[in-house]
Amino acid sequence: MDQNRMKRISAIRAIEYLDDNESIGIGTGTTVEFFIEELSRIRNKFVNKKFYASSQRTMQILLNLGLDVREPDRILDVYIDGADSVDRNLNMIKGGGGALTREKILAFNSKKRIIIVDETKVRKNIFSFPMPVEIIPFSSDLIKLNLINMKLKFNLRKFNENPFVTDNGNFILDVFLENEENPFDIAHKIKLLPGVVEIGLFEDLADIIIIGKENFEVEEIKKVP
Amino acid sequence: MDQNRMKRISAIRAIEYLDDNESIGIGTGTTVEFFIEELSRIRNKFVNKKFYASSQRTMQILLNLGLDVREPDRILDVYIDGADSVDRNLNMIKGGGGALTREKILAFNSKKRIIIVDETKVRKNIFSFPMPVEIIPFSSDLIKLNLINMKLKFNLRKFNENPFVTDNGNFILDVFLENEENPFDIAHKIKLLPGVVEIGLFEDLADIIIIGKENFEVEEIKKVP
Repeated sequence: MDQNRMKRISAIRAIEYLDDNESIGIGTGTTVEFFIEELSRIRNKFVNKKFYASSQRTMQILLNLGLDVREPDRILDVYIDGADSVDRNLNMIKGGGGALTREKILAFNSKKRIIIVDETKVRKNIFSFPMPVEIIPFSSDLIKLNLINMKLKFNLRKFNENPFVTDNGNFILDVFLENEENPFDIAHKIKLLPGVVEIGLFEDLADIIIIGKENFEVEEIKKVP
Repeated sequence: MDQNRMKRISAIRAIEYLDDNESIGIGTGTTVEFFIEELSRIRNKFVNKKFYASSQRTMQILLNLGLDVREPDRILDVYIDGADSVDRNLNMIKGGGGALTREKILAFNSKKRIIIVDETKVRKNIFSFPMPVEIIPFSSDLIKLNLINMKLKFNLRKFNENPFVTDNGNFILDVFLENEENPFDIAHKIKLLPGVVEIGLFEDLADIIIIGKENFEVEEIKKVP
């Protein structure tokens, strides 16, 4: 199983959806970087389009290609991103790379959301991937206490022994909801805890999920209108 | 009508509620500063207590008094704060001073919440004070578009011509909900917009509201258990 090849074939398919779009949002992560690599091969078609990046890292890669990258100032025509975990109802867990808040801001404010994944990301229970939760550093210990009171397990995400810091200056808790009976309800409760900026559960924020599989097969799951 | 005198008498009454508490959260604003002034007169009673501040400004004032100020690390015994607008059902609008997120974090994580106001803050419709909304700067234009789509009026809060920046590094939109039919529902919708960190509507986060009135009268509204 060559996971990178599966990522790449989903990325190649996504290029077909860009044609008539003027404003293009780009997410963060390894699959997205395959997508940008494909984009760079046909760069001339995109030099007059406007790009919007969900992270400093993606912004830098797009700028290096000489593309027109802007601060979000309009509803986007299309948004392309990966995901850490998806199900066949188009629910997702995102934020393994730490960019969940900006990703959700762009996905929510785009007309068409295209998610590219390899087939290892498709799960019966999306919560088998821990849900990232972005939190205000000031509230860190208190939110941990709230989660302990809810009998939940979690890790504060680290980077070189220190707390990982998001592009928004916040911390991330990875919360384990796999064995909970009502993980969606719990996720919604966590979202409302004061100090929580955003949760990595994305609902109704994908229009098409493109799944790269073995043997160069591609499957698309589309939202039922 | 001497508003400062009314603030002061509500602050004096609140001191009585501190007695057996070890961990004390302190909010932000002019009424709270009267409270801290009263506290400083009997400073010796409090030198061994632990204090928690909702803003850099309050932290600095408490440190100047030589009090033990800590990062929030536990559920607090008591939290004292003002409010911009309250009703007799103990709903509040807070955040006129810009500290709404940390205020909500401390209020939510305290066993007893005591709110001190002068009687000009008591209103039939709390939304006659615009509701502050703390937002991630990256999402600023998009949230404005979302509010315009909801047909709402708002102002980006400014400080010397530039956007006002909160202690968390974010911006504030003041949203006008006074004439809406269902302002609570709208507030809850705004809270869920990606990029919104917190809203200034505080529900079920006051146990006692102490109202300073003219002629040295004080009224207390208490939560029905």
